[in-house]
Amino acid sequence: MLNFESDYLEGAHEKILQRMLETNEEKLTGYGHDKYSASAVDKIRQACLCPEADVYFISGGTLTNALVIASMLKKYEGVLAAETAHIATHETGAIEYSGHKVLTLPQTQGKISATQVRDYLTTFWADANHEFMVFPGMVYLSHPTEYGTLYSKEELQAISEVCHDYQIPLFLDGARLGYGLASPESDLSLPMIAEYCDVFYIGGTKVGAFLGEAIVFTKHNCPEYFLAHMKQQGALLAKGRLLGLQFDTLFTDQLYLTISQHAIAMAMRLKKGLQEKNYRFYLDSPTNQQFIVIQNKQLEELKKKVAFGFWETFDESHSVIRFATSWATKEADIDELLTLL
Amino acid sequence: MLNFESDYLEGAHEKILQRMLETNEEKLTGYGHDKYSASAVDKIRQACLCPEADVYFISGGTLTNALVIASMLKKYEGVLAAETAHIATHETGAIEYSGHKVLTLPQTQGKISATQVRDYLTTFWADANHEFMVFPGMVYLSHPTEYGTLYSKEELQAISEVCHDYQIPLFLDGARLGYGLASPESDLSLPMIAEYCDVFYIGGTKVGAFLGEAIVFTKHNCPEYFLAHMKQQGALLAKGRLLGLQFDTLFTDQLYLTISQHAIAMAMRLKKGLQEKNYRFYLDSPTNQQFIVIQNKQLEELKKKVAFGFWETFDESHSVIRFATSWATKEADIDELLTLL
Amino acid sequence: MLNFESDYLEGAHEKILQRMLETNEEKLTGYGHDKYSASAVDKIRQACLCPEADVYFISGGTLTNALVIASMLKKYEGVLAAETAHIATHETGAIEYSGHKVLTLPQTQGKISATQVRDYLTTFWADANHEFMVFPGMVYLSHPTEYGTLYSKEELQAISEVCHDYQIPLFLDGARLGYGLASPESDLSLPMIAEYCDVFYIGGTKVGAFLGEAIVFTKHNCPEYFLAHMKQQGALLAKGRLLGLQFDTLFTDQLYLTISQHAIAMAMRLKKGLQEKNYRFYLDSPTNQQFIVIQNKQLEELKKKVAFGFWETFDESHSVIRFATSWATKEADIDELLTLL
Amino acid sequence: MLNFESDYLEGAHEKILQRMLETNEEKLTGYGHDKYSASAVDKIRQACLCPEADVYFISGGTLTNALVIASMLKKYEGVLAAETAHIATHETGAIEYSGHKVLTLPQTQGKISATQVRDYLTTFWADANHEFMVFPGMVYLSHPTEYGTLYSKEELQAISEVCHDYQIPLFLDGARLGYGLASPESDLSLPMIAEYCDVFYIGGTKVGAFLGEAIVFTKHNCPEYFLAHMKQQGALLAKGRLLGLQFDTLFTDQLYLTISQHAIAMAMRLKKGLQEKNYRFYLDSPTNQQFIVIQNKQLEELKKKVAFGFWETFDESHSVIRFATSWATKEADIDELLTLL
Repeated sequence: MLNFESDYLEGAHEKILQRMLETNEEKLTGYGHDKYSASAVDKIRQACLCPEADVYFISGGTLTNALVIASMLKKYEGVLAAETAHIATHETGAIEYSGHKVLTLPQTQGKISATQVRDYLTTFWADANHEFMVFPGMVYLSHPTEYGTLYSKEELQAISEVCHDYQIPLFLDGARLGYGLASPESDLSLPMIAEYCDVFYIGGTKVGAFLGEAIVFTKHNCPEYFLAHMKQQGALLAKGRLLGLQFDTLFTDQLYLTISQHAIAMAMRLKKGLQEKNYRFYLDSPTNQQFIVIQNKQLEELKKKVAFGFWETFDESHSVIRFATSWATKEADIDELLTLL
Repeated sequence: MLNFESDYLEGAHEKILQRMLETNEEKLTGYGHDKYSASAVDKIRQACLCPEADVYFISGGTLTNALVIASMLKKYEGVLAAETAHIATHETGAIEYSGHKVLTLPQTQGKISATQVRDYLTTFWADANHEFMVFPGMVYLSHPTEYGTLYSKEELQAISEVCHDYQIPLFLDGARLGYGLASPESDLSLPMIAEYCDVFYIGGTKVGAFLGEAIVFTKHNCPEYFLAHMKQQGALLAKGRLLGLQFDTLFTDQLYLTISQHAIAMAMRLKKGLQEKNYRFYLDSPTNQQFIVIQNKQLEELKKKVAFGFWETFDESHSVIRFATSWATKEADIDELLTLL
Repeated sequence: MLNFESDYLEGAHEKILQRMLETNEEKLTGYGHDKYSASAVDKIRQACLCPEADVYFISGGTLTNALVIASMLKKYEGVLAAETAHIATHETGAIEYSGHKVLTLPQTQGKISATQVRDYLTTFWADANHEFMVFPGMVYLSHPTEYGTLYSKEELQAISEVCHDYQIPLFLDGARLGYGLASPESDLSLPMIAEYCDVFYIGGTKVGAFLGEAIVFTKHNCPEYFLAHMKQQGALLAKGRLLGLQFDTLFTDQLYLTISQHAIAMAMRLKKGLQEKNYRFYLDSPTNQQFIVIQNKQLEELKKKVAFGFWETFDESHSVIRFATSWATKEADIDELLTLL
Repeated sequence: MLNFESDYLEGAHEKILQRMLETNEEKLTGYGHDKYSASAVDKIRQACLCPEADVYFISGGTLTNALVIASMLKKYEGVLAAETAHIATHETGAIEYSGHKVLTLPQTQGKISATQVRDYLTTFWADANHEFMVFPGMVYLSHPTEYGTLYSKEELQAISEVCHDYQIPLFLDGARLGYGLASPESDLSLPMIAEYCDVFYIGGTKVGAFLGEAIVFTKHNCPEYFLAHMKQQGALLAKGRLLGLQFDTLFTDQLYLTISQHAIAMAMRLKKGLQEKNYRFYLDSPTNQQFIVIQNKQLEELKKKVAFGFWETFDESHSVIRFATSWATKEADIDELLTLL
């Protein structure tokens, strides 16, 4: 059966597997102190044009979010995020488990704006009783967002300015960062993201790796003894080589970008096909996730032939569904899907 | 250079790599709902003779310990463990981070006894003010221990009885379980461990896998909505297949046991060699970790030729060091090490 | 200067002081095991017509909320509340500090409805991925609300039914409960509240006591070893007598109700005066907090003569302010305030 | 019946009650912003000869300990304490509940030494794998200790030096501080304690107040936004006046010291009587808690006539019991007790 359920359906890119085979018997020091991790750090620093960045590899996104937030915030601080942000909705309260509140702002197509953030911060600090409220200590953005949308350079820069005016870090969750960078509608490069954000992560799990996310601290702002934070939150893999080697491969010869571009090409082929068939889009996504509104009856039929993501109820008779492409999607599958639709 | 620093120096067993290659392009559902995870669960149930066990796969040991303890204990409960237990010493307070105290007992060769546990529990419940103390809500054992030693069947059964008398679960940390099962001095089988323990985990990271530990709840006692606990603590991998497939391989044709036996054979070869050279052992370990007491001067010389683990200061002029073998250790390396010593 | 800033401006009711004097030299057991605490528990049970209720006394509201929620919820559960609920806004994240998320619902005049709660619960349980979300494990209501409004008997009963359908407890924060019970517009008695709620607290700090809130578990549902929970969260006073004696006094000869009625009479006298002067009310409050919308210019003038609560910005030129009466408010002060306005 | 069970048996000193009566009707701002709290802060600063100290009032000892430790430590740090320290034994894991480990050291008569602390810190920092261990981030002392013993000036100064060498704060739990200062065997004054410690608290609950502990930060080291920390942990009383007024009274005309001296005089009268009757002391306590070893048979007899604290089992036929005097103990009661013994 066809499957467009998510962007983590397959294993890993073949080059990663190949290098795992080649290096398998090498005896390497644990906990990320191996040569492949060191090489991956170097390559990521270069790709970000941020030679002094601190880079750490973590096994998954929720753990990464919880770790970055808990290690950077003061105890009485929370994190500002869109009401649809992954940390606010689909991580079973992992942030609250670490003791911190997610302070939500209304979203527009999955995004929040510099104006919203500034208003929140201004109001907070103007309130005579702000010590009775959770302090906004960080801004969290997903890029691409949970709806596949992107921040423009101008939007990101503006949010960054607000954060710096209020001296709080800007954290960008890049679980699907490759698909954002590869989108033709994006005017943001990796060095720009490193410039505007204080910390961000480059997603591997959804972009070619078996597992792994690379946290990048860009402003000499890595929490002291970050390994201790990692160990305490269960985020320090014994065989750190497994993460290092994958990112080393993804950041060799621009593999990360190349495979992301493929996913976008596949998504655009699908989008064009859907447009031609007059499907109604829930919103205009320039990345690898495409959301359409379909009749519930059609949804039931479609389910028998293809796996996709059910997103939300649209109205009594319609639903929003998601098709996700990835680095591994085949053109033939797109075409077969379009035939079915 | 020779390297006996730990049992997680290499990648994974070749059969695991082979199956990763074979299955890499399959599109599989995430979060452990794939067929390989299901198959691994079945095989582990069979190997434990515990057909209704609940089995979950986690990426690493510290996260596993934190998850099992935090999901099973009541808020005001702590976990009883040897003062040398991994959770008490080398996890940067991951258990306390989850809000629970590690209640330590004096150890003998890394072990605690049923008598110690019973005395602690009896004293606690006899104290009129026990509501002012942390309740002992679980017993944690490492097997093999941090010193490579093993509980006998009689010892484990006795501790199990105490736990059941007081209705608290017995949790066995099996990060190196294979090396315990494969030791000729062990009289404990996997089904016995499943019988005596309420929950335990089978370590993969140190025994043939890239990463992964399999938690086994043996008494229909898995905390409700365990996936929610996993997600909340950042322990739910998107590509659960990666863990499932590895355990499926390790539990096919007794691979887990076979490769563990190899590690033990290597450790015994080393032990015999050390005995013949009249090295002083720190304690008598029947498993893959061997601890010797050497002069600090010799230690400095040895460091130049071989990597090993520094364990602790013995006295002013001596130290305890550790050599670890694993599933991947080569006989030639043992022999070369013995030549150097 | 006149002061209507809050309902906790004065010390305690004179009868409380008198009994503190009378009993001061008695030697009493600590931690709530004294005879006055026991007597207070009895009287509260009687007042609630709930002879088997479990009753505990805590020093303040935030600690009470954090304790009730953390002791009753499972680790992966959160608490449903109005977006304006005290726990969601003005407790510096005390609930999140305990690891639990506050799941907010839009409010109407500070209240949420049974329909909203049912919709949330239905949607949550219908979602195939609900294990990725925080489980709604409790409903929290403030009564009176933060805006002085009240739930009717019908409304409370309906919310109670939803909770029981979904087997989650209904928790009512009664920091100002007396002022709710004493309002002529209330059709809820203490026994009804005990019937509909699974747990609630009777506020002392704002209703005649120096400090103290009485938690009432009405359904044999008190978390096991609740004293241990209290101690762990720092909520167990050594001299529990101080809390017990105050509640014993407040629940003797209906003092709690009588002094609450006085506060309401004062509030209604103020409300009538404000209405006669054509002040604009922010909403129609039947209890001791009255909110009006005034011009910022007038606000600045008023500030020089009377203390009041600034609530929120209404529009560019207007603000919402609050006048609070209490058990200690004097008629003469109301009249003087009305002269000034 | 006679009662020597603890030092928190009675209400409060009569002068406190008198001032509560006098000020009861005053309308005062909440949360510690009242004039009596301000005055108490001033007087405590003067008594400590520490004019810029930050002083906050908290309702009880466990909450104070949890608040000081959680607000001052980094996430991965723990607190060093004697194995018999209150925070390690009798607070139901309140410190672990805040996420921090209590790192225990063996005690001698309830005390730890500068040498022990230095050895621990040296060993920790020398360990190549210290990021896998909880960082020692604070030293906690009780003074008087849980066994009534006292640190000498020399001992405290030495521990202070070690802490400052390693740049970690020294925290002194002074739940019974008055009884330490008033002991004829003490060579420590309040200004000395303020000099050697980075933070300490002056206990009110056990020394004349209904409730209340005064935290003193002596080195411009109060955590930023401490009120937010207080509110978050439920430690901010609405009617802060209640705590401020009591400490204002206790620090007027040296009342705190005078009533402590009375308690010590009573304890010494009892000690002398016990010595004359050849009772066996468990240890030599110079403060208000006296520990003797008695036969279990005699213990049972004694219980019928006098309440005391059971401390611990001494051997099969003997127990350690505690008699506590306080500011409220009457000479006649001591004499009657001595007659019974």
